[in-house]
Amino acid sequence: MAICITGVAGFVGCNLAERFLAHGHKLVGLDNFSRGSMANLKKASSSPLFLLDNVEMSDLKAYSAAIARMSAREPISEVWHMAANSDIPAGVKDVSTDFRDTFMTTFNTLEVMKEFGIPVLAFASSSAIYGDLKGAPMYEDTGPLFPVSNYGAMKLASEAVISAALESWLKRAFIFRFPNVVGTPATHGALLDFVRKLKRTSDNLSVLGNGTQQKSYLHVDELIDAMLFIRDRAEDRLNYFNIGAEDAGVTVKFMAEEVVANVSPGASITYGEGNKGWLGDVPRFVYSLDKLRALGWHPKLSSAEAVRLAVRQIAAQEMDR
Amino acid sequence: MAICITGVAGFVGCNLAERFLAHGHKLVGLDNFSRGSMANLKKASSSPLFLLDNVEMSDLKAYSAAIARMSAREPISEVWHMAANSDIPAGVKDVSTDFRDTFMTTFNTLEVMKEFGIPVLAFASSSAIYGDLKGAPMYEDTGPLFPVSNYGAMKLASEAVISAALESWLKRAFIFRFPNVVGTPATHGALLDFVRKLKRTSDNLSVLGNGTQQKSYLHVDELIDAMLFIRDRAEDRLNYFNIGAEDAGVTVKFMAEEVVANVSPGASITYGEGNKGWLGDVPRFVYSLDKLRALGWHPKLSSAEAVRLAVRQIAAQEMDR
Repeated sequence: MAICITGVAGFVGCNLAERFLAHGHKLVGLDNFSRGSMANLKKASSSPLFLLDNVEMSDLKAYSAAIARMSAREPISEVWHMAANSDIPAGVKDVSTDFRDTFMTTFNTLEVMKEFGIPVLAFASSSAIYGDLKGAPMYEDTGPLFPVSNYGAMKLASEAVISAALESWLKRAFIFRFPNVVGTPATHGALLDFVRKLKRTSDNLSVLGNGTQQKSYLHVDELIDAMLFIRDRAEDRLNYFNIGAEDAGVTVKFMAEEVVANVSPGASITYGEGNKGWLGDVPRFVYSLDKLRALGWHPKLSSAEAVRLAVRQIAAQEMDR
Repeated sequence: MAICITGVAGFVGCNLAERFLAHGHKLVGLDNFSRGSMANLKKASSSPLFLLDNVEMSDLKAYSAAIARMSAREPISEVWHMAANSDIPAGVKDVSTDFRDTFMTTFNTLEVMKEFGIPVLAFASSSAIYGDLKGAPMYEDTGPLFPVSNYGAMKLASEAVISAALESWLKRAFIFRFPNVVGTPATHGALLDFVRKLKRTSDNLSVLGNGTQQKSYLHVDELIDAMLFIRDRAEDRLNYFNIGAEDAGVTVKFMAEEVVANVSPGASITYGEGNKGWLGDVPRFVYSLDKLRALGWHPKLSSAEAVRLAVRQIAAQEMDR
């Protein structure tokens, strides 16, 4: 039996694939390569355990045909649905992006799982479903849920259809509410933006917002540790967990300074106004990890340590380009 | 300026239209007549204040063209989006029903409102977004939100995209979380089923489930009172309210007995097993109305009184057929 990873060529998908392969699992990887790339799959695709298909998952017929092809070679026991739009500002500008790449891919994942009798779904949700709680803590059972971005809205909509499927035919689901994740291969995000900006103008880094915006960050290696831990230990039909760092996070100013120190020591930093970087961004939030801690997992790295490690990795990644 | 009602030929839409017209408002009514009917618009369509268009709102181009035509005759100041799938079991059987008729119509409503600069949306949401809380009370801010039907999932998804739109361009939104609503013109629901069954076999009424299932019911006239009250009084950018009866509700047994007493006195009633009528149905819930009461509105009729009134009205409706 194989595990299927959607969005396998993306940031989280490719790291997850390498981990499953290292554990000796057979893998079916799907991606439409709109944001993911073959370069991210250099390591995974060298494994004889890895099958890859290029498919547009928002197209139900194409998706179903791909699963039929793959299932014929190796039956699929569960789907890890990581495919999604990962660019929040892009989704604010054009609502069709999150609709197609986040929601429709989830809706269709459920349709093909039902068609092919695949009983277990693991889903990459997001802290963005909680919206802007003005600093109130985000527990897994917090309500109301009024996301402030189309990204968050389509993640919440995805959770909703998964929940309804559980009542009808789906056997088990794991919903992982991702925090801000850092690491490589970096494809987007503030750290990568900062590194690239500094490579263009090495004497100054210009930052959106006033730099006081604070968030917690988890390293992608730890994100995958946490998902596998939850998949292994959680015993409910519907298992939903916040995943994140255990501290209040670091500021944009801290991240900018770390990038400057690594990439172009001595460069000046100029800040904008306000504490929102873009529409749909939540300026400051407290993300509860009590539930995950009670299950027995906690991260080894603080937000600051995760950012420091990621800055070094991203700087090295961009050197190679 | 006109108010636009989508799903105007449906149960709630046609009652809402009559009320707005009685208050002297200009109205633009839209429906695809898949579940609604012209018969429901007999009264409304006789008014010179009423413009009607037959449009498939899940088709963005068609929807946009209809709003363009209508806006040319009368600019639209706000949209009351009542169009949706109203048949929960149908949506469990075929997920595309709620996806298309509930979610896509909302998604596209936002798209056309953005295109035509319409700043205010009133939306018919549902208690179904709360899922099965095992008897715990459903406050407006209750979480988590794990709906057990595609109907509830697509209402929650609709709330999510409305919330995201408010962060971006939408000026104000009113989210009405409907309870079980009774009245005429009845197009679906337990009371209509019971009346029709008894008209076919007048000596016995066969009921799904064991009859202990209990829900609160609001009469459609009071639902509209409540929506207009909220529209008038609530002052937030995002206003979201449970609307319902103030009591714990009545059982299916009570409803069956009321129908028998009105339609075919002396008929026997046979019950099935279990307290769920169908997949995706929530057996028993407590629906908090504290927030609406605090705003100053409460229903005049109890659930029992609303059901009694509706049974008489539905029996009369079915006599005429």
